[in-house]
Amino acid sequence: MNISILFGASSYEHEISIVSAITMKKVLKKSELTFIFIDKDREFYLIESSTINSKLFSSGQYKKCKKLTLKQGGFFTNRIFGDKIVSTDITINLIHGRDGEDGKMASLMEFYNIPFISPRLEASVISYNKLYTKLFAQSIGVSVVEYQHLSKSDERLLKLSYPVIIKPVRLGSSIGVSIVKDKSELDYALDVAFEFDNDIIIEPFIDGVKEYNQAGLKSDEWELSIIEEPQKEEFLDFEKKYMDFSRDSTVISASLSKEIEVKIQNTFKKLYDPLFLGSIIRCDFFVVGDEVLLNEINPIPGSMANYLFKDFEDILDRLSKNLPKERNIVIDYQYIHSIQSAKGKSNL
Amino acid sequence: MNISILFGASSYEHEISIVSAITMKKVLKKSELTFIFIDKDREFYLIESSTINSKLFSSGQYKKCKKLTLKQGGFFTNRIFGDKIVSTDITINLIHGRDGEDGKMASLMEFYNIPFISPRLEASVISYNKLYTKLFAQSIGVSVVEYQHLSKSDERLLKLSYPVIIKPVRLGSSIGVSIVKDKSELDYALDVAFEFDNDIIIEPFIDGVKEYNQAGLKSDEWELSIIEEPQKEEFLDFEKKYMDFSRDSTVISASLSKEIEVKIQNTFKKLYDPLFLGSIIRCDFFVVGDEVLLNEINPIPGSMANYLFKDFEDILDRLSKNLPKERNIVIDYQYIHSIQSAKGKSNL
Repeated sequence: MNISILFGASSYEHEISIVSAITMKKVLKKSELTFIFIDKDREFYLIESSTINSKLFSSGQYKKCKKLTLKQGGFFTNRIFGDKIVSTDITINLIHGRDGEDGKMASLMEFYNIPFISPRLEASVISYNKLYTKLFAQSIGVSVVEYQHLSKSDERLLKLSYPVIIKPVRLGSSIGVSIVKDKSELDYALDVAFEFDNDIIIEPFIDGVKEYNQAGLKSDEWELSIIEEPQKEEFLDFEKKYMDFSRDSTVISASLSKEIEVKIQNTFKKLYDPLFLGSIIRCDFFVVGDEVLLNEINPIPGSMANYLFKDFEDILDRLSKNLPKERNIVIDYQYIHSIQSAKGKSNL
Repeated sequence: MNISILFGASSYEHEISIVSAITMKKVLKKSELTFIFIDKDREFYLIESSTINSKLFSSGQYKKCKKLTLKQGGFFTNRIFGDKIVSTDITINLIHGRDGEDGKMASLMEFYNIPFISPRLEASVISYNKLYTKLFAQSIGVSVVEYQHLSKSDERLLKLSYPVIIKPVRLGSSIGVSIVKDKSELDYALDVAFEFDNDIIIEPFIDGVKEYNQAGLKSDEWELSIIEEPQKEEFLDFEKKYMDFSRDSTVISASLSKEIEVKIQNTFKKLYDPLFLGSIIRCDFFVVGDEVLLNEINPIPGSMANYLFKDFEDILDRLSKNLPKERNIVIDYQYIHSIQSAKGKSNL
């Protein structure tokens, strides 16, 4: 299989997208890989798999690579006499944060008719915005962690009891996130979060809550990953974050009662189908008593959460053969023909 | 002002977008207009304002016009030695339905850094999907018409009393909409709606309910249109629909109590700000007793609801000078530099 990997872009998570992309080279050993880098100015570059490493980007050397243009059917290298398509079977959107998770990349792929793996447009907007995720989950009967929404212009009136966790509504990877233990820490934490977004969400910080991650997808059948209990740290420093986005070896299943395991799996399926068809997502759940609460949806998890699956490459292959199809719309100008033949509509 | 108008695209409302675009030529008399047509295969064509008429499209003659490519900063004509930008001050997204209202066009404009008038990405997804519109409105305290959601695979179990109105979740312009008076009509109406969408919404059909349309926007200040009481017809045939998308003369204000007028205006403002900044939308409200209920948001109303404003061209000009700005993200590779200088990360 020839796989194109899109990464980078104008996002706070630009750099960890590079880490994710480089990790895929270690994970996808049987496939032929083509890397398409989007720089901060949103120009596309074709990166040879053999040359990819982080310095290529941090040094600006990527600018010597071939530039690409997006046109119907794919990415093209520009040549004076006839542009040439970058041939590929499937394109993976591996852009974390803005441009990748917010729906822009899904829009581009759908508009230009490029088969791709990633949440579609609606799914992107719903999962990128933590407020919309809550509304969506509640509307389909999935419980969520209690929350309060605050806009930049709102009065800073806290309705929850301390400690709380403050998150920008539209970012991932813990960017702009703070745990606030009492009132004295509130203003600074809000200032930090509002640096990144005009909307923030406040949730109770439940110390020691059981957290479980479930990744999965639906190809011709359900492919659910093992459930992981992630290591708990109040803050991830850059090395830990790097580890998180460059993981490539399978982890061990969390030890869970069969009942909770099934509850987590069923909740995942409820959230995924049909909104997230075509994508591999990771849902992070809290378990309180015997209740499963959605904490967050990771629409494009670091290194695609490959480490949670047994045979990731095989799963990718099957997903790429079972992508949701866009509805075919016939445009036959019947309506305009009718108007044209109606009286007095000559000005059309 | 030089205005580019985007219209057409792969949408059930492709043809009425053509009608809307041609109408803008009559409305925007002081501006220089450039028309950019997107055909059903999603190729871009530059249409000279002097040659635009409906036959150009229904006959396929538009294919002789110059093809355009979207690149950073704008649309370009392809030339062997250096592509040339189509110069413009502002681009108006006048694509009704899919591609235009669903968020794809907003994504393209944002990604390629083109100043544009239309709902942004999130606003598009929220208003294009009638279910999400309900969730959003309720979350900010705006009352909506009662509803039931049904997916194609769901059991056809009606929870509301007849008569009801059935609508595909993602379409406008009354496409696929039926009024169902009793059980005998239900299956056929559902079949029709599911022809167009996998999700439908069922609402009580309130015969004789007072309906009011309010258009508006926020530039440097609020610009609210007059409130119209639209003419009621159970079904709009093609001539009526045509009239609706080609209206270019100001209508008369509805006669309303001051109290209800202010309620409608305030509800509009609540819905619009900040989600819909950068766009001109029309909200359709029902008034039951003294309660104002949101019926629908028209993110890209026919001919931009110009007929509801006193000086539409002036308003457009002010809006184009007060567009929401994208957040600037600095990418400095600090994180990658740190990893590179950390021990044992040489494989990055």
